[in-house]
Amino acid sequence: MKNRVTQLFGIQYPIIQGGMIWNASWKLASAVSNAGGLGLIGSGSMRPEILRENIEKCQAATDKPFGVNVPLLYPQIEESLQIIIESGVRIIFTSAGNPKSWTHKLKDAGLTVVHVVSSSKFAVKSEEAGVDAVVAEGFEAGGHNGIDETTTLCLIPLVKEAVDIPVLAAGGIATGASMLAAMTLGADGVQIGSRFAASEESSGHEKFKTSIVEAEEGATKLSMKKVIPVRLLKNAFYQTIREAEDAGASTEQLKGLLGKGRAKKGMFEGDLAQGELEIGQVSAMIDQVKPVKAIINDMVTEYNDLTSKMSAFKL
Amino acid sequence: MKNRVTQLFGIQYPIIQGGMIWNASWKLASAVSNAGGLGLIGSGSMRPEILRENIEKCQAATDKPFGVNVPLLYPQIEESLQIIIESGVRIIFTSAGNPKSWTHKLKDAGLTVVHVVSSSKFAVKSEEAGVDAVVAEGFEAGGHNGIDETTTLCLIPLVKEAVDIPVLAAGGIATGASMLAAMTLGADGVQIGSRFAASEESSGHEKFKTSIVEAEEGATKLSMKKVIPVRLLKNAFYQTIREAEDAGASTEQLKGLLGKGRAKKGMFEGDLAQGELEIGQVSAMIDQVKPVKAIINDMVTEYNDLTSKMSAFKL
Repeated sequence: MKNRVTQLFGIQYPIIQGGMIWNASWKLASAVSNAGGLGLIGSGSMRPEILRENIEKCQAATDKPFGVNVPLLYPQIEESLQIIIESGVRIIFTSAGNPKSWTHKLKDAGLTVVHVVSSSKFAVKSEEAGVDAVVAEGFEAGGHNGIDETTTLCLIPLVKEAVDIPVLAAGGIATGASMLAAMTLGADGVQIGSRFAASEESSGHEKFKTSIVEAEEGATKLSMKKVIPVRLLKNAFYQTIREAEDAGASTEQLKGLLGKGRAKKGMFEGDLAQGELEIGQVSAMIDQVKPVKAIINDMVTEYNDLTSKMSAFKL
Repeated sequence: MKNRVTQLFGIQYPIIQGGMIWNASWKLASAVSNAGGLGLIGSGSMRPEILRENIEKCQAATDKPFGVNVPLLYPQIEESLQIIIESGVRIIFTSAGNPKSWTHKLKDAGLTVVHVVSSSKFAVKSEEAGVDAVVAEGFEAGGHNGIDETTTLCLIPLVKEAVDIPVLAAGGIATGASMLAAMTLGADGVQIGSRFAASEESSGHEKFKTSIVEAEEGATKLSMKKVIPVRLLKNAFYQTIREAEDAGASTEQLKGLLGKGRAKKGMFEGDLAQGELEIGQVSAMIDQVKPVKAIINDMVTEYNDLTSKMSAFKL
């Protein structure tokens, strides 16, 4: 299959691995790219020199295309972008910020630029800023999320109608069936987070991976809506936040409870009680830590099996 | 096409119209059944004698199967159920309560019983109670909703894996593409609310129908979580609730703000400012009030066109 996404990135399958903080190092990104998808290094949890090291190791580990995810609110953003450009990375996914601020410079440097959005309004702004594609991420996704709370099922057709550039669906996708559902809704490809966070190659803590596998339906909740909405596993830290929110805590009080370094503490250091554990609703369907190659093979096999059964679905 | 849902109800298409309060009178239900789907009378907003009248008019208006939706917490539940049984209605959808309390009696009376759930835990309880099918309703759905906030994309595969009885997907479905996405995820059929609320035959107020058509992305929000979660259009009444919630209002305070009769005021009497307007996220994709026959024809045509294009989706 060739479509606008496989052609844009020069990859075999329209499957992108989300550039998740503390999980998406060179090892995960290169494994995904070697298996026919597009791997992304998650630079949001990397100091610039660590990012440079990850890019170099990724280049050594794969001759396939890969990219870097950069949250545009990252404090050392200019330094990180300079490293990305200098290192010869060809693909960048930007998130959490205004696409107008950097897209022009990145396009001038010859990069393919994709921006992550949670509404068609921001998809249109991204297209106007000159990006090559958008990731449209629904309410069920792990980590930071939009204020409108639009689910993937509702969001994809709306974004697809609003823009002409390719649309990657994110949130709630971990299987061949959910990937095909997203493509049926109009997506040109998918971005997958949680399923790859629970891979052997993810740099997340083993305890965090186990918590994804053990998570059942209802195990996550969109939280911190007065600060910036984030979907968390319901651990002790989440309960603290929830009680404060129920009692009417202010933005400042919530920021105080969050403090600094909680995402690292949870996902990288394995403090399952007091860390911030960012994971999607789809964790309820993930029951095994698997190698990346098996994840992608299983997904593609299920997807293709379903496409060939579709004539039986006719009304 | 014949599948477990069309065979269970004796209908042409596995499309069920949600039995929405203040919208689903005999006129809507009979129009849906005459167009090949399954119409449901929404008894939650009907006194028993009004329900009897609606059943009789529906029987006169169609010779096709139709059903009644009954919220099990309805105060005059025994009287309503007696009327349903006596009138010869063959299909009942129950919601908002424990399926164990009435399923046995309804099955003994020869009815086909379906229960509405928002989690696989309650789907299993419903199956154990002896129901013939479940409706699995996701976070994006309008009206009352579950506490886990699981979206349709995540919920359907989980419910499908948990039970053997047929599963109807609800929440976020208004087009042929979203129906096919739900079937791809494992649903045996769909239950559709918002799209039919904005039909010519709905008994909702014209102003309410217009507000569905005008609703854009982000126009609804799941609200009243400390009482019973309900997805509302963001009108003046919603803003009052939201401000109270942000300030930490208690369950009792929220119940006081809600008061009585707000759903009727909004959806039936057309008070768009102070009424309770229950509608799903998918309202953002609904841009015209249409006759039921056109809604179902358009949906089936789009659905079938997509199934025949699926070979091009192969990876």
